[in-house]
Amino acid sequence: MAGLAVAARAFSASASAGAGGVAMVQGASRGIGLEFVRQLLRRSDQGRVVATCRAPASAAELQKLKEEHAPGRLTVLPLDVTDESTIEAAAASIAETHGSLDLLINSTGILSIPNVIQPETTLSKVQKSSLLLAYEVNAVGPILVIKHMRPLLKVGGCSETGRGFSLVANMSARVSSIGDNGLGGWHSYRASKTALNQLTKTASIELGRKDNIACILLHPGTVDTDLSRPFQRNVPKDKLFMREFSVEKLLSIIDNVKKSDNGKFFAWDGQEIPW
Amino acid sequence: MAGLAVAARAFSASASAGAGGVAMVQGASRGIGLEFVRQLLRRSDQGRVVATCRAPASAAELQKLKEEHAPGRLTVLPLDVTDESTIEAAAASIAETHGSLDLLINSTGILSIPNVIQPETTLSKVQKSSLLLAYEVNAVGPILVIKHMRPLLKVGGCSETGRGFSLVANMSARVSSIGDNGLGGWHSYRASKTALNQLTKTASIELGRKDNIACILLHPGTVDTDLSRPFQRNVPKDKLFMREFSVEKLLSIIDNVKKSDNGKFFAWDGQEIPW
Repeated sequence: MAGLAVAARAFSASASAGAGGVAMVQGASRGIGLEFVRQLLRRSDQGRVVATCRAPASAAELQKLKEEHAPGRLTVLPLDVTDESTIEAAAASIAETHGSLDLLINSTGILSIPNVIQPETTLSKVQKSSLLLAYEVNAVGPILVIKHMRPLLKVGGCSETGRGFSLVANMSARVSSIGDNGLGGWHSYRASKTALNQLTKTASIELGRKDNIACILLHPGTVDTDLSRPFQRNVPKDKLFMREFSVEKLLSIIDNVKKSDNGKFFAWDGQEIPW
Repeated sequence: MAGLAVAARAFSASASAGAGGVAMVQGASRGIGLEFVRQLLRRSDQGRVVATCRAPASAAELQKLKEEHAPGRLTVLPLDVTDESTIEAAAASIAETHGSLDLLINSTGILSIPNVIQPETTLSKVQKSSLLLAYEVNAVGPILVIKHMRPLLKVGGCSETGRGFSLVANMSARVSSIGDNGLGGWHSYRASKTALNQLTKTASIELGRKDNIACILLHPGTVDTDLSRPFQRNVPKDKLFMREFSVEKLLSIIDNVKKSDNGKFFAWDGQEIPW
């Protein structure tokens, strides 16, 4: 970690990070993560984008975006949140290529995989394996990414983005709210995202104080993605968002966030969600 | 599960559960759990107590309590929250011996073990292994215990305790509150107990509606136990409780809890703690 921090500082002192800074989207091969990459690349005020996913070679949409944009605008790196060595390798690669990060969006999430994990409709269906898998992907993964990207975020965040601090945006979900939980069910997913909220709040205190990095949590609404598709039946049509709409709203929050918003949890419409 | 439920119902129809009902304390070999057992046995209005711990044979205090009380008043059973088969075996044993449960206190908790897990003072010390271990013991364990004791709790909870419903009391901690988190640190412990809060709230909705079981969360204060001993240095003397005092206060909450308190999080003094 110390070595990486030094390397990142050295780079920053010797090279410009480019107009608009460097944004990383973790979990970018599909769904909301992919749409973040698409919209960030479309914006003229946004500099370079680092997209990570488990298998870049088979991430056709990301590879297509890479070809459509100027060389160097989009970097696609392998990163599996369940394998910490890939997070460290991605941090080392970003340190070498970009030297800093101004924005980190953690967008991975697991809700259901046929024959592996399903949102529980009753306590009797709760399995230890599902609880642990959801926690590993949805809570442990993002916090380890922040841990390893921290030296790069510490270097970034300055004048080029106009923000004055680096930002971590973790994708949470309204069902993670304990106070708002009126229906029950979805034990593994809920608990993992609630833990992510606590881990993000905990990190925000230290990073906000020591490193000029703010951390926020975002609820994208129920968005038409692979993740939500099996569970859309009971969602009213006007409450099921296209991913373009949701990500536009979330980027608007990211654009306007203040340092005093550090540690807060926002819905797509900017409303704060209770813990 | 279905077989156990039927066995429990059959027992309940054919035998009395005894005055004061049956209370189970999970994690009872020391600390707050042991004190719960001691105080429950001392009360004339309390019936039988089931104490569980990982290794009953070496739980000297529990064995001593067993000898001090009438035969059958205290049952000591093996239960390791990280091994679901031991939870199932304990449930089967209680079904056979007692037929029902009126009160379940989940008191296990992990905060630190030398060379295994330590409360983190900074994000850079956060380890995946610690995050997962704390989650397995502090969040997954109690919810699996509730899952397997549910048929027994469904049978209990009636007139003999005067409560009119069965009660699950999970030991949480104020540091699990996201809203109250002003200091940061202790990532693994905080996140696991926050997840426990969400899992308890989630279970409370289903069990309250379907089974006449209420679930609450309790914060014991900072109590002088093996768990807190390495971290007592900065605790003012008047804020460090003897376990006798804390458990008296918690039992008073348990005695006076109403069905409408289902899903709530109380401190030792009866104040609700924000999520």
